[in-house]
Amino acid sequence: MESAIHQKRVEECARRMREAGLAALLLTKPANLFYLTGDGRWCAYALVSAGGQVALGVPMTDVEEVSTLARFERIAGFEDEVGMIHSIAHHFEQFGIASGTVGLEYTFLTQSMMGMLTHPHAKPQEVGVADCTSILSAMRTVKEPAEVQRIRRSAEAAAAGMRAAVRAVKPGATESRVAAEAERAMRIAGAEGFYRTYVSSGPRTNLAHGLPTNRRIAAGELVMIDLAPIVNGYSADLCRTVCAGKPGPAQQAAYELFLKAQLATIARVRAGAQMAELEATMHSTLKEPGREKQVFGPPIHGVGIEFEEAPLPAGHAFFHGEKAPPPLAAGTVLAVGNCGLYTGPWGVRVEDTVEVTQSGPAVLTRFPCSLRK
Amino acid sequence: MESAIHQKRVEECARRMREAGLAALLLTKPANLFYLTGDGRWCAYALVSAGGQVALGVPMTDVEEVSTLARFERIAGFEDEVGMIHSIAHHFEQFGIASGTVGLEYTFLTQSMMGMLTHPHAKPQEVGVADCTSILSAMRTVKEPAEVQRIRRSAEAAAAGMRAAVRAVKPGATESRVAAEAERAMRIAGAEGFYRTYVSSGPRTNLAHGLPTNRRIAAGELVMIDLAPIVNGYSADLCRTVCAGKPGPAQQAAYELFLKAQLATIARVRAGAQMAELEATMHSTLKEPGREKQVFGPPIHGVGIEFEEAPLPAGHAFFHGEKAPPPLAAGTVLAVGNCGLYTGPWGVRVEDTVEVTQSGPAVLTRFPCSLRK
Repeated sequence: MESAIHQKRVEECARRMREAGLAALLLTKPANLFYLTGDGRWCAYALVSAGGQVALGVPMTDVEEVSTLARFERIAGFEDEVGMIHSIAHHFEQFGIASGTVGLEYTFLTQSMMGMLTHPHAKPQEVGVADCTSILSAMRTVKEPAEVQRIRRSAEAAAAGMRAAVRAVKPGATESRVAAEAERAMRIAGAEGFYRTYVSSGPRTNLAHGLPTNRRIAAGELVMIDLAPIVNGYSADLCRTVCAGKPGPAQQAAYELFLKAQLATIARVRAGAQMAELEATMHSTLKEPGREKQVFGPPIHGVGIEFEEAPLPAGHAFFHGEKAPPPLAAGTVLAVGNCGLYTGPWGVRVEDTVEVTQSGPAVLTRFPCSLRK
Repeated sequence: MESAIHQKRVEECARRMREAGLAALLLTKPANLFYLTGDGRWCAYALVSAGGQVALGVPMTDVEEVSTLARFERIAGFEDEVGMIHSIAHHFEQFGIASGTVGLEYTFLTQSMMGMLTHPHAKPQEVGVADCTSILSAMRTVKEPAEVQRIRRSAEAAAAGMRAAVRAVKPGATESRVAAEAERAMRIAGAEGFYRTYVSSGPRTNLAHGLPTNRRIAAGELVMIDLAPIVNGYSADLCRTVCAGKPGPAQQAAYELFLKAQLATIARVRAGAQMAELEATMHSTLKEPGREKQVFGPPIHGVGIEFEEAPLPAGHAFFHGEKAPPPLAAGTVLAVGNCGLYTGPWGVRVEDTVEVTQSGPAVLTRFPCSLRK
């Protein structure tokens, strides 16, 4: 993206910082760095002043590349952790920030990283700290058209991965082998990486987080595949459940119920809708008599630079340090169907990535829904 | 592994807790849960009492599978975050822990996760908190023979991945395509997953963390490939640098210097050696006149359930919430060569996984070292 976009984002961020009474942000979360500066590498930081100045710190090996990706004048290379701390202190000094409050990413920082960033040799002693998670989350929630376009490209890579995965589903194949084919196909379709690939089979489809193992798929078993490629820094989230053979009537009934719930929820996606309304639609359809205890996980979440990001349903948001979401704005991108229907011996889940528009939902992930391969 | 191994680990952990004055540990880091209980899923916790009792909490969907993987009597399923908090409180009560100090994983917990675990509805108010990172790290640093065997299997998967990656290196291929072939080969060789795959080419080999992009490799460029498959829960760490064509004399000289430094360091690996001694060997060989500023990153780190874990060199350890390492014990497994030699236009790195034995080093990763494919 052009540097003008990042300049505009920094200005908006600075405005929100002043509104929140913050003198600076000290960011280290790659997704936030990428959004604000155009470069989101690990082991880096950005100090952003309420006046809209930006200073970056990266490993000394990376200075040249960062200079081409993130267009800001102040870029310091550090040799190690001590050097990083000193360069933070230097940038605080250069910006003339010796008091006030600096915002830190509480939902990202471990206790030990928090210790580094607030080390007396890094942060001026008179500067207090506060959580700044919601400032970046609120900005990132509403996507610009160029961002939606990138998510669309990621959705295409996800579909390519799903095609390869479904083709690899057969009795005797391992879950890991199915994941291998999906991951390779996503990279060939343009992904520079991916978030964790989930492939579970048989009784393991009943797990909340079915990471692949070397379990072999048996005939007639369900296989759940959840993919999140990264293309040009943006993700899409696509999940399908298929049967390695002919599905039984109970499997088919659960699957059709899930699809009905997901489609009803997608139908309600539009600017102005509440996350709570979407969650209620999903739950009320799924939780038919006898199935009240079969639903697990938040049914909807945001998608963007991270495959799972704000907005989150209010309850989930609270525990993940995010704010309860406002009514959906056009340009928000959601994954719908993230909760599964877990019947005990097996589960089903179908998830698509959907753009919120003024007139309704625009489904970005395109892959047929059918238990039969 | 057999449940007797986990029982023994829990007893040793409880002994160390009593020594450290801790009434309980409340663990959520998958690597630590896996080590101690035999199951290391996300979104789960273990409460371990100083008397050696263990209670697990997992998503309600996962209870049945966990019962087969982790052999402890108390396993609670929870429906959501509120349920998780209540089940923690319930287990504190069942263990009769109403005062004293509970150990938490400060190097793993974000501020928001910390908030959940210490929520007044989870942890009894009179119970204080302290960091317990070093207890688990010290135990995990010294591997049992069965653990080394698993790392050996992972080293074989890493070699299979490296073979496929090196084969895919050719002018016109993207970094991501090279990664695709490595990842697929690792899975086919038995990996159930892998940590981040690094593939960088040309000027990007000078980066500290060269994650793959869609950059196309050009003839004569160096390509750096760093792999960490996971087999049966254990990793190995293998890095090679190869040339897409005929390496130039400067590339060859830097590569030979790096190899010399790495081999000299590996030669000093033995029970009783100090990490500082290994680090100094690597640095003193690499930092020949004119190259003092070309070395970045800790040259050595531990390998096991995580591809990068304790022991870390003292300076690095401090900032990552780990203790400075004691003299190396037999059974410790190290990655040697983690720092690169970054010359500016390009860099070189070679990394192998090495077991510390009484008599010297046992190199677990087997892959030829040569810039030429």
